[in-house]
Amino acid sequence: MAEEIELEQSDYDFPHKHLLGLKDYSKEDIQYVLDQAQYFREILDRPVPKVPTLRDKTIVNLFYEDSTRTRLSFELAQKRMGADVVNFSKGSSSVKKGESLKDTIRNISSMKIDMVVTRHKSPGVPHFLTRCVDAAIINAGDGAREHPTQALLDMFTMQQVYPDLEDKNIAIIGDIAHSRVVRSNVIGLLKLGANVTVCGPKTMMPAYVHELGAEVSYNLDDTLSWCDIAMALRIQLERQEDGTELFPSIREYHQLFGITMEHLKKHPDFTIMHPGPVNRGVEMESEVADSDRSIILSQVTNGVAVRMAILYLLSGGTRI
Amino acid sequence: MAEEIELEQSDYDFPHKHLLGLKDYSKEDIQYVLDQAQYFREILDRPVPKVPTLRDKTIVNLFYEDSTRTRLSFELAQKRMGADVVNFSKGSSSVKKGESLKDTIRNISSMKIDMVVTRHKSPGVPHFLTRCVDAAIINAGDGAREHPTQALLDMFTMQQVYPDLEDKNIAIIGDIAHSRVVRSNVIGLLKLGANVTVCGPKTMMPAYVHELGAEVSYNLDDTLSWCDIAMALRIQLERQEDGTELFPSIREYHQLFGITMEHLKKHPDFTIMHPGPVNRGVEMESEVADSDRSIILSQVTNGVAVRMAILYLLSGGTRI
Amino acid sequence: MAEEIELEQSDYDFPHKHLLGLKDYSKEDIQYVLDQAQYFREILDRPVPKVPTLRDKTIVNLFYEDSTRTRLSFELAQKRMGADVVNFSKGSSSVKKGESLKDTIRNISSMKIDMVVTRHKSPGVPHFLTRCVDAAIINAGDGAREHPTQALLDMFTMQQVYPDLEDKNIAIIGDIAHSRVVRSNVIGLLKLGANVTVCGPKTMMPAYVHELGAEVSYNLDDTLSWCDIAMALRIQLERQEDGTELFPSIREYHQLFGITMEHLKKHPDFTIMHPGPVNRGVEMESEVADSDRSIILSQVTNGVAVRMAILYLLSGGTRI
Repeated sequence: MAEEIELEQSDYDFPHKHLLGLKDYSKEDIQYVLDQAQYFREILDRPVPKVPTLRDKTIVNLFYEDSTRTRLSFELAQKRMGADVVNFSKGSSSVKKGESLKDTIRNISSMKIDMVVTRHKSPGVPHFLTRCVDAAIINAGDGAREHPTQALLDMFTMQQVYPDLEDKNIAIIGDIAHSRVVRSNVIGLLKLGANVTVCGPKTMMPAYVHELGAEVSYNLDDTLSWCDIAMALRIQLERQEDGTELFPSIREYHQLFGITMEHLKKHPDFTIMHPGPVNRGVEMESEVADSDRSIILSQVTNGVAVRMAILYLLSGGTRI
Repeated sequence: MAEEIELEQSDYDFPHKHLLGLKDYSKEDIQYVLDQAQYFREILDRPVPKVPTLRDKTIVNLFYEDSTRTRLSFELAQKRMGADVVNFSKGSSSVKKGESLKDTIRNISSMKIDMVVTRHKSPGVPHFLTRCVDAAIINAGDGAREHPTQALLDMFTMQQVYPDLEDKNIAIIGDIAHSRVVRSNVIGLLKLGANVTVCGPKTMMPAYVHELGAEVSYNLDDTLSWCDIAMALRIQLERQEDGTELFPSIREYHQLFGITMEHLKKHPDFTIMHPGPVNRGVEMESEVADSDRSIILSQVTNGVAVRMAILYLLSGGTRI
Repeated sequence: MAEEIELEQSDYDFPHKHLLGLKDYSKEDIQYVLDQAQYFREILDRPVPKVPTLRDKTIVNLFYEDSTRTRLSFELAQKRMGADVVNFSKGSSSVKKGESLKDTIRNISSMKIDMVVTRHKSPGVPHFLTRCVDAAIINAGDGAREHPTQALLDMFTMQQVYPDLEDKNIAIIGDIAHSRVVRSNVIGLLKLGANVTVCGPKTMMPAYVHELGAEVSYNLDDTLSWCDIAMALRIQLERQEDGTELFPSIREYHQLFGITMEHLKKHPDFTIMHPGPVNRGVEMESEVADSDRSIILSQVTNGVAVRMAILYLLSGGTRI
């Protein structure tokens, strides 16, 4: 049977109904989510990793873009909390019939849904949805703008190594312009007091890079000698299929920005992260991903816990 | 926790095992379903909109055509009643392997299924299935023949405005020939004593229109001045992609049969319905769909309640 | 409510963590699974065919190939045992993003999954997965190598006709080379002491046919006069679409190896099986599939029970 969960009866008054991005969350809000996630993380190590907190809730996963781990991670979090879950993805939907996003969400909401987890290629879709319906909206990625649960799980995983991120040096390496992960991480990490550097080829830096608030580096070796944690981003190889030739090429990218076993030896202290899926031999050598310096698989496990915490906090939740 | 439901211990002996179409249901049967749906509609407004009536049942949703709201509405109804639900859609099935419909259904049924909800482009498929297996069959749309749960939810929604539909004037407007909604509605509404007019361009009237039993009108303004409720049907824009040019064109259709704010002013009493998804600017102006004369979103909510009622009545149900 | 199940408190110490193939299972292991399946088979005939044995388990169905009945059968078995079930199929996955199988499975496993049911076109994938993760792995078909749950359900169904298969004559007829069913059946049946003949055209025999351990026949009539049970395999008509012309042609195949009503009259004792879906008029006449000599639909029902038994035994299961 599912065991009882003892959530701290905190006095903190969590002020949010939605999770649209970390931009809207204060340092205290973020740390509160991460603290709650710790309870759920412990539940995942129990023989029965379930807690029926959401058994009265109905959640729709509204994914307009394919996703493996994010969708699966949310679905597992939801089912382990006992929610009724309905999946709604692009392929099987009336979107084909040209129904507007607003009509879709209002229709879904009319079916008495409590929460909507959504991914869409257009920035701002989750914000738009909050203006259409009453349900709690969780952003699971809106274009290259925010992907807040990914950043929360990343920060949670970093705190397992450095419980206090104040003044820790975090490098984010790769295609900064096209990543949906980087922006939420920079916002969140700066709020927690970390120093953040984004590192990659000039062609992969966004025009607004200096507005991000992070330092910018074009030299991997410098960055690795500086950082406590290096998070490599995924190079989206599928972008090449659009006719846009990648510059630098994959091979050049790996030579200039791929993390190698050599780097690990030369800089013995930094920890490796990656939001996955890793392109082995591109962002890093395969041995790097599997080395004991890598905490990539912890990120995956922690992702379920962090999502359980967010679902719990936004469920308007009956205290357990 | 799910609250108790108090269903009226009616003496009415509901005589049906299946819901293939409203053709087979008497006026009393239809009203009985709508009365039961009222109980489930109230449950949807509770903090916990669940009732574990079907927790011992296994239901397969066997959809040979894409569908958003119908599939979602059924799945929510099923999960809120605690049923085990398995989805089976065209894409992932042995249909690709050329398995016959009869073999598919007999195989599914051999796995001890209680109910099958089915949508198929060919009229008569649900009837055929009842001859193959023991499970209760619910028609979720068979070509342009019947779509009985849609008509039931429409009538339920109409009764929220006019509790007695006797002698009420109902107009159904649009592409009468290609709608799976119109036939079930005309059959059901006539049984409940309403007056029904179908209205649209001649090119969108079916050859058998005079056998439907409804009046036929080719003039929107006349129809709107007559009716208490105007239900606009969806123009299936995707038909244009088949090479069949729509006649009238979309623009002409809207000019001749689209409902405008002007119409609302000129005829101040009729209520607007639409089975969704609305093509805003085609069947009606966008403001019409969002006006307080529109009860389109109520139709969506009521759809879940009506489907809960049908699932309950056909489950061979343990009385609660 | 789900009734209590009384599982025999057997002293048999089931030694397996995975089900990769029957090659690894002893005669005693196989018979033990079949005996357990008998309990679950009886549960399927109860008014409430459910038993909450796996309510604390999370199972991922990881299907890299389409499948109707196998996926549905597993999913029903899982849901009837109360497991949390997440489906993961090729289409919606990061496989598109070029993620390696190893990374996919390690990521899924990091989300604290108890069991993985997998189908893949490459032989050996399930074995590979056991080296990547801790979860119990169940092979739902790896190319043309093994499909052990199919063979177990076939043997279970045969034992309903002949409780002791020792010295019973079992013929497997059809495209021996391309079937994922035949190999597991030959291995299992020989272990249970049955005599096995594979029968089909020479062009459909694999090069390694004499290593299978079964007798080989090229004459249907001889085979049918000899056997107690004739299991016809599915001719994969879709192979023709690959540009490979089938030899013999479909018509010739039916003339030479299709089972007819004539055969049933001439050889009055043998029982008909088929893993489904039957190509009516190819592997057998339509009347043969529907005759009282056919136990094809029993195979389908038994499939759910056998899969419940395997899930139960591999769940590291809390005894009920």
